[in-house]
Amino acid sequence: MSTDFAESPVKITASDGPGQPAPSAELDALYQGFEQELLVPLWTEIGGLMPDHPAPRAVPHVWRWQGGLLPLAERAGRLVPVGRGGERRAIALANPGLGGLPYATPTLWAAIQYLEPREVAPEHRHTQNAFRFVVEGEGVWTVVNGDPVAMRRGDFLPQAGWNWHGHHNISDTPMAWLDGLDIPFQQYADTGFFELGPDEVTSTETPARSRSERLWAHPGLLPAGLAAPQSSTPVGAYRWEYTDAALRDQLKLADEGYPGVIEPGHAAVRFANPTTGGDVLPTIRAEFHRLRPGSQTARRREVGSAVWQVFEGRGTVTAGQREWAVERGDLFVVPSWVPLTIGADTQLDLFRFCDTPIFERLSLYRASLDGAS
Amino acid sequence: MSTDFAESPVKITASDGPGQPAPSAELDALYQGFEQELLVPLWTEIGGLMPDHPAPRAVPHVWRWQGGLLPLAERAGRLVPVGRGGERRAIALANPGLGGLPYATPTLWAAIQYLEPREVAPEHRHTQNAFRFVVEGEGVWTVVNGDPVAMRRGDFLPQAGWNWHGHHNISDTPMAWLDGLDIPFQQYADTGFFELGPDEVTSTETPARSRSERLWAHPGLLPAGLAAPQSSTPVGAYRWEYTDAALRDQLKLADEGYPGVIEPGHAAVRFANPTTGGDVLPTIRAEFHRLRPGSQTARRREVGSAVWQVFEGRGTVTAGQREWAVERGDLFVVPSWVPLTIGADTQLDLFRFCDTPIFERLSLYRASLDGAS
Amino acid sequence: MSTDFAESPVKITASDGPGQPAPSAELDALYQGFEQELLVPLWTEIGGLMPDHPAPRAVPHVWRWQGGLLPLAERAGRLVPVGRGGERRAIALANPGLGGLPYATPTLWAAIQYLEPREVAPEHRHTQNAFRFVVEGEGVWTVVNGDPVAMRRGDFLPQAGWNWHGHHNISDTPMAWLDGLDIPFQQYADTGFFELGPDEVTSTETPARSRSERLWAHPGLLPAGLAAPQSSTPVGAYRWEYTDAALRDQLKLADEGYPGVIEPGHAAVRFANPTTGGDVLPTIRAEFHRLRPGSQTARRREVGSAVWQVFEGRGTVTAGQREWAVERGDLFVVPSWVPLTIGADTQLDLFRFCDTPIFERLSLYRASLDGAS
Amino acid sequence: MSTDFAESPVKITASDGPGQPAPSAELDALYQGFEQELLVPLWTEIGGLMPDHPAPRAVPHVWRWQGGLLPLAERAGRLVPVGRGGERRAIALANPGLGGLPYATPTLWAAIQYLEPREVAPEHRHTQNAFRFVVEGEGVWTVVNGDPVAMRRGDFLPQAGWNWHGHHNISDTPMAWLDGLDIPFQQYADTGFFELGPDEVTSTETPARSRSERLWAHPGLLPAGLAAPQSSTPVGAYRWEYTDAALRDQLKLADEGYPGVIEPGHAAVRFANPTTGGDVLPTIRAEFHRLRPGSQTARRREVGSAVWQVFEGRGTVTAGQREWAVERGDLFVVPSWVPLTIGADTQLDLFRFCDTPIFERLSLYRASLDGAS
Repeated sequence: MSTDFAESPVKITASDGPGQPAPSAELDALYQGFEQELLVPLWTEIGGLMPDHPAPRAVPHVWRWQGGLLPLAERAGRLVPVGRGGERRAIALANPGLGGLPYATPTLWAAIQYLEPREVAPEHRHTQNAFRFVVEGEGVWTVVNGDPVAMRRGDFLPQAGWNWHGHHNISDTPMAWLDGLDIPFQQYADTGFFELGPDEVTSTETPARSRSERLWAHPGLLPAGLAAPQSSTPVGAYRWEYTDAALRDQLKLADEGYPGVIEPGHAAVRFANPTTGGDVLPTIRAEFHRLRPGSQTARRREVGSAVWQVFEGRGTVTAGQREWAVERGDLFVVPSWVPLTIGADTQLDLFRFCDTPIFERLSLYRASLDGAS
Repeated sequence: MSTDFAESPVKITASDGPGQPAPSAELDALYQGFEQELLVPLWTEIGGLMPDHPAPRAVPHVWRWQGGLLPLAERAGRLVPVGRGGERRAIALANPGLGGLPYATPTLWAAIQYLEPREVAPEHRHTQNAFRFVVEGEGVWTVVNGDPVAMRRGDFLPQAGWNWHGHHNISDTPMAWLDGLDIPFQQYADTGFFELGPDEVTSTETPARSRSERLWAHPGLLPAGLAAPQSSTPVGAYRWEYTDAALRDQLKLADEGYPGVIEPGHAAVRFANPTTGGDVLPTIRAEFHRLRPGSQTARRREVGSAVWQVFEGRGTVTAGQREWAVERGDLFVVPSWVPLTIGADTQLDLFRFCDTPIFERLSLYRASLDGAS
Repeated sequence: MSTDFAESPVKITASDGPGQPAPSAELDALYQGFEQELLVPLWTEIGGLMPDHPAPRAVPHVWRWQGGLLPLAERAGRLVPVGRGGERRAIALANPGLGGLPYATPTLWAAIQYLEPREVAPEHRHTQNAFRFVVEGEGVWTVVNGDPVAMRRGDFLPQAGWNWHGHHNISDTPMAWLDGLDIPFQQYADTGFFELGPDEVTSTETPARSRSERLWAHPGLLPAGLAAPQSSTPVGAYRWEYTDAALRDQLKLADEGYPGVIEPGHAAVRFANPTTGGDVLPTIRAEFHRLRPGSQTARRREVGSAVWQVFEGRGTVTAGQREWAVERGDLFVVPSWVPLTIGADTQLDLFRFCDTPIFERLSLYRASLDGAS
Repeated sequence: MSTDFAESPVKITASDGPGQPAPSAELDALYQGFEQELLVPLWTEIGGLMPDHPAPRAVPHVWRWQGGLLPLAERAGRLVPVGRGGERRAIALANPGLGGLPYATPTLWAAIQYLEPREVAPEHRHTQNAFRFVVEGEGVWTVVNGDPVAMRRGDFLPQAGWNWHGHHNISDTPMAWLDGLDIPFQQYADTGFFELGPDEVTSTETPARSRSERLWAHPGLLPAGLAAPQSSTPVGAYRWEYTDAALRDQLKLADEGYPGVIEPGHAAVRFANPTTGGDVLPTIRAEFHRLRPGSQTARRREVGSAVWQVFEGRGTVTAGQREWAVERGDLFVVPSWVPLTIGADTQLDLFRFCDTPIFERLSLYRASLDGAS
């Protein structure tokens, strides 16, 4: 058999570790035969393929919002059009361990998106699951299947795959926000579909609350005629006022001696799909965390990767061998099984998203509180 | 073989319908043999045991609140103590088709419960699933596992089986409310356990919001450390303001041309377990309905039984061959497969609970919109 | 308000236990008011309605096959026709605690069914879930949705609700078997529908294996095009040879020191729905047990009721205060929460069915191994 | 901010497609700023990141067993030891589109494993889910958690992650088989853990049936004491005789006019987890297909990738633009969304495994029968 490839992409490098064959001309010939037939032996590769514990290529890294992402996005606002073709003025975090690919982690995309006053990001849809999180500003409505959803500081706006959506800025000031998607996962897994929609958004209404919220965002209540489980949340916006209140309540309950917080001084909520109680998106979990001034999280490892954004406050993040002082807007990534500790100088509010639902659904999730290797 | 029974409880009555055996002395002897051996033939019983469609013994019936339940409860308030032994001053609907048993339907208990000023209903727990719905008044706190839950008009307060609970009235006025439980089902099924607790409630705090609400009743948000699915809702109170807002929103969305309502002029919400999106209790579904003035529901049959209470407004209920004008506080029951239509004279708000979760989980649920037999 | 009933079915009996109101003329008047309005107080009834633990009206009881059910069925075979109207020559166990109703337990029907040579039981369908278990004989085919299923000693033949079915005996000898259904549950819950089909079975083929077995009864294999979960098992017959082999294997594994048996000397298999791994029917669990000679089961209570039939061997059954020597064909019932012990004189093979799926699905199941009250 | 990287891995290439910014010195400076800050714009990358439909880098490819894999494995048998360090004499398919990585598809590993007479592959465990499929030969026992499982032609032997396992060949002839794992997925996702066990297998018994089969591989029967759902199948071997019988039965049912086959002339079974009815492994589906001589499958696309091995017979495979004549032992891969047709010259038996469970659980699965782009 011969391949269609002028030169085989397979290159086998003999190894001299324990259990390896002795070098010989026959062995060289065997390895050449493997290369020719597009075959790779396990015995030379096993350490890299099957490490003792996750050994991610992605590394912990921080990106600065003020003085980093935001001024670059502002410059892009002047130079780069938004419209059909480019589709979005979004600038993605490229994890330095991933060879220059625009991936925050192997599974997750995180980008700053930027709209100038009166600009429109045209409609399209894709199977990639997405959300927006607003660290500051307002004035943009994202229109999801014709439903206009206001975007304001602190809001979390999920948008499940294959829904039509566009954005427009109706205000006189630019607006920037965080986009999170599973683009890297779907690119890796070859699951993505994409379609173009109208160049303009399909509704120019600017209500304070989206229709999705009016139907679905009442606490503990589902519309009786539509109560069947859905694979993604039908709620278009999780508003800051509720998130903030829930975190405050958790900490006060702790003060009163009752359970609720994750650990002392550390409150957290998970954004949930009200039709199932599960995650908002099939591939992405989203949470909001609040640390009291002076508190510190336990050192923790988890299978799967996460992206965090500081919403408000100042603190110190220790991720594996890296340590950073962080402040409002800063983004940092934590690859799989890298131990993480966060300490709060002030009250520290953080948004977090991660790929845990993938691994929970595939029985691959593990976590370790001690943080030992 | 002989039984331990002086007289067998089995009495066989020969039938003369199609397919029946010809009368004879041998047949009489056979039937006597059956009686003696505690056996019953299918062929004489099949029509009653396996009807063409559900043929409930329970009948549609209405109980009046004003002029019926409430004045009797007030009289009981003067004559009947509340405390250990009797446990609760609760007066239950006895469906006239069920032979005097205190059952609204074969599965559901519905009662008015009444507390005089400063009275305490002592703590106990039972596997029977329960809820309270408040049609008017306030001043009572129900204390569930030490968590005091205020009860106010319009509130729905579920309380899953096997949680400790007691009630106390801290006000100067009496208070009455609706109790709903699955007592008849658990009595039928021999699943009930019961334990006495302290004579006093374990907390005399009177917060406006229970701890359960502070932890669980934020829209679309779950405490991140406690997000695992639970078989019953952890929310102790579904407040009227949210129910009312959700119903208003549904009707306004319909006005604007968007889906959400069950049918024209008819909004409805289901009280949900936020950890699963399913029903609040394993055996009981609870809903709130709002009909616009002049609207009428489609004629509908369902497997399973329901109890309704008018929260506000006036209308006409047609349940099988029965028809009643109903108003605030009135309770009516609809047995399995009895066609139901409700018409609204004014805006008509109704609370409803039913046993649908039992039949959905057992693949026995059916509904028919046309209402034809 | 007045009722439509000439005489109210409600009769209230004042109680003099702890917590009861003092007798008085006003109290009598109040209770009369209750009766008139079809109301029942909880305080006079609570002990019966909400016992400390299940207090079933059904009692443990045994029915003899040889010398009991079988000779009576044979006599019925001579006197009672099988055909349209009576539908089936089935004779049901009537639990002596249930007032003469043809119910083995509150939820379960158990009957001997009997077909003379060449007889046909006409086709019908009903929502009641059913199965057949063959303690002896053969020669009958049950035809389920046109699929002829041979019935032979040791076979378990489930038949989910709403499937057409009839039976015919193609042999020269009569045949008797055990029918199990959830008739009492569906009668109680008002969920039953019933339709008549053809007078003759729709297929007179007599294959050794049904089509359902050919499609679904290969170990661990599902037809790739039909693998979606189904609410009931698609397998029409669980053959004795497989049941027997599985039990033998379990006991041999125990001999070799490996897990598998329920307890020493006690092997058991559950008949499963291969599309879900769950129970064969939504309301009924079915199992087969084998006890080694001289072994005895631990004393065990369970919420829910069970019916057992001795398939082979001799032993002693202790159910609550009752104790019986049992042998081939004998049937006994164990109501909810009644402690049960079975001892084996010989190798003792027992078929068992119970209503556990109902209570597991409703989070009401409990079991206790110690058997203490 | 500056990175720790001497040279940024990010290299941005300006694009001149529609919607792109006009070239300018400022744009160059902006893109340099992106590179320096480890950022990548979406607008230059969107076509590659979010294609209209899956555009896999992996390509369809065939590997020959006779004359390809098998002789190379035999040569490796003479030159390469099996033992601690290299762990396994396994030679993996390297999809020519994946840059020389030992991955059959982005998610799936497929390798020939080879054991000389009397050789032992030492014990280890890993979170990677695995199976073996035997296209020819016998004589090896794989020992899984101490349970020896015989491997014989046609057998499918799943082995869920984190179970100890080793293999040993007790015969006088070498043996080769197919290994399938989710190594590429777990390598990508950083979920893998690995531990070394003993150098020898922990049991040298050579029973014809494993303990797992004796406990779990009886059709429709589960051990009553162990019936809880498990995330992977507890069955250690799915034997050829049952697979073959199930396929024969499906085709015969089709001849008789009954449903069961996937399409005319094409029978298929899915290997199932008997405790759930779901897939044998959380990340891998496994099936066996049989085509009648002269039949051809419909052209079909699916999200996700598959590996097929011809078990017996001859046919023609068309995968996208590629077409191959295939025969016993040949392996071919079909990347995501590549249309596939298989035609059978003789009766054609094929084993197939794929990553569909990943995408079904994440709501990303799609299939298209027409096969049009």
